Amino acid sequence: MLSHCPLPFPPESVVLLGHGGGGQLSSELLHNVFLPAFSNPLLQALGDAAVLPMGQRRLAMSTDSYVVKPLFFPGGDIGRLAVCGTVNDLAMMGARPEYLSVAFILEEGVPLARLQRVVDSLAGAAQEAGVLLVTGDTKVVERGHGDGVYLNTSGIGWIPGGVGPTPQRALPGDAVLVSGCLGDHGMAIMSVRDGLEFDTQIVSDCAPLADLVSRLLAVEPDVHVLRDPTRGGLTSTLQEIARASHVGIEIEEKAVPVRPAVASACEMLGLDPFCVANEGKLVCIAAAERADALLAALRSHPLGQEAAFIGTVVAHHPGTVVARTPFGTRRVLDPLLGDPLPRIC
Amino acid sequence: MLSHCPLPFPPESVVLLGHGGGGQLSSELLHNVFLPAFSNPLLQALGDAAVLPMGQRRLAMSTDSYVVKPLFFPGGDIGRLAVCGTVNDLAMMGARPEYLSVAFILEEGVPLARLQRVVDSLAGAAQEAGVLLVTGDTKVVERGHGDGVYLNTSGIGWIPGGVGPTPQRALPGDAVLVSGCLGDHGMAIMSVRDGLEFDTQIVSDCAPLADLVSRLLAVEPDVHVLRDPTRGGLTSTLQEIARASHVGIEIEEKAVPVRPAVASACEMLGLDPFCVANEGKLVCIAAAERADALLAALRSHPLGQEAAFIGTVVAHHPGTVVARTPFGTRRVLDPLLGDPLPRIC
Repeated sequence: MLSHCPLPFPPESVVLLGHGGGGQLSSELLHNVFLPAFSNPLLQALGDAAVLPMGQRRLAMSTDSYVVKPLFFPGGDIGRLAVCGTVNDLAMMGARPEYLSVAFILEEGVPLARLQRVVDSLAGAAQEAGVLLVTGDTKVVERGHGDGVYLNTSGIGWIPGGVGPTPQRALPGDAVLVSGCLGDHGMAIMSVRDGLEFDTQIVSDCAPLADLVSRLLAVEPDVHVLRDPTRGGLTSTLQEIARASHVGIEIEEKAVPVRPAVASACEMLGLDPFCVANEGKLVCIAAAERADALLAALRSHPLGQEAAFIGTVVAHHPGTVVARTPFGTRRVLDPLLGDPLPRIC
Repeated sequence: MLSHCPLPFPPESVVLLGHGGGGQLSSELLHNVFLPAFSNPLLQALGDAAVLPMGQRRLAMSTDSYVVKPLFFPGGDIGRLAVCGTVNDLAMMGARPEYLSVAFILEEGVPLARLQRVVDSLAGAAQEAGVLLVTGDTKVVERGHGDGVYLNTSGIGWIPGGVGPTPQRALPGDAVLVSGCLGDHGMAIMSVRDGLEFDTQIVSDCAPLADLVSRLLAVEPDVHVLRDPTRGGLTSTLQEIARASHVGIEIEEKAVPVRPAVASACEMLGLDPFCVANEGKLVCIAAAERADALLAALRSHPLGQEAAFIGTVVAHHPGTVVARTPFGTRRVLDPLLGDPLPRIC
């Protein structure tokens, strides 16, 4: 049995929505509650997926629950999201996603036709991503609890030999690439939330990235870091990498692709598009001399046509991400406490 | 993309609590909604866990979400349950559970001290079961949604060569064993539900069965069927085996061990203890000539001391389970529509 560590919180502390937002509060919960209790070297690596030694090979394993609200949104739904999210977490470790489990927590009273739409979307996304849904579970909670459908998917896939991207491997001098426009998923969800309506329809970028990653790794197996900037957006992702690798990261603000509709919706709401969630984009960090080849590989794929070189890893200010603004000034990118809106995935 | 199959339900059909109860309604949802959409041979096997070919070896993979109410109950809590449930599903395929993921859906406002208790219990149960918690996820939903804590665990483990219990392998003449007293978990949960109070405290049997299974397999690697009679209890489990193996099963009612406190609580509530959930028991079906050795192996383990031989697989009445009552009459064991009480796991 574990010894009981003293609580790092005042006794009256409670869970806040921001604890699920992928920002600073999530990080505190992870480091103060989960890691001390579950501590082991495999978990401690803190990648998008665990890397498990299985005989001579390495298996990636990942899990995510999905509580997105609403269940259906422009460009996707909770079913598609649940496949893409877990497939992408595996792909970010360089793994080829193979098998997924899916578990439903249903609310009593949900129309079966609505459930069927989610199930069909799950099945379609799995087919698109080239993974098999091999096992599952269903629980039902009383009317008024849950929100129609919560999902969990967990997935596994082998990591090819010679491949090993991790958040710890960014090196000074490395190039920082993104695979396309940022902020689409978060703003698509916000666009269908109560009271928000934008002029232009913004569509979620929700997509499985395993095939795009295969193309990258074919060009350069030794990519140093791959991450998908989901909750917390680009800012949280780069900050986590900077901290894990003990490096600084400098990006050129105007080099980061953001759709005009997303930029203006963010401006209207006072949000930083770099802090908004994505579900079909990746950040790739690799040796500078491989940047052109990797950028070409990304752009050769339908999901990477708007890929861009956005910055460089530096040796100074370790743990800090700095953006050069279009006005030539510099600002520190600090992750938000939580997500700008909860229940984004 | 999948073609869209016509709904097998009237358009106004909705999800009922019983759809999550492990009985007939659960089976209908599985066969009418999930299997047609996700259909593949690995899923179709319908074991407690999927059996995945990985190179020359076979990996078992399982997932379960946990929505038990209340979170803490005599003999366990949602954290211990979440480890044992998934570990046991893997063990029922003959696998040695190795790695678990854990995903939290937290309700805004849950005291962090309460979460810490669940987390410590998860960690303790994982240590007891000999598995590592290697990856996780946290989502938070608004106050009033969720019920404090919902969990999901998914797990994987290798299946040793020569081992392959499945629900399809029961053969006429085989012996049917159970590893101990039935109905403890379900009645322990009921005992702390609103308005129910029993004279004797009933304690959940929630326990990881991997070690017990190792002992069984050491005596006889070719056990035909292993199942843990969770939701739906012994009745659902035997019925599923009878259907999957196209055999009949005959059991001796008075041979099935049930604690007096559980029997009288069931009688008081008008429940059949064979339909009540267990979380630390297994059903083992194997060649009759191995029954004595297997029973001895079960009884040599702390979790199997009350193991018993309860019946026989027969060639007649395939798909049907029949119990001989203490009065010499025979009754058909029919699974309930749903669980006698929802939210048992």
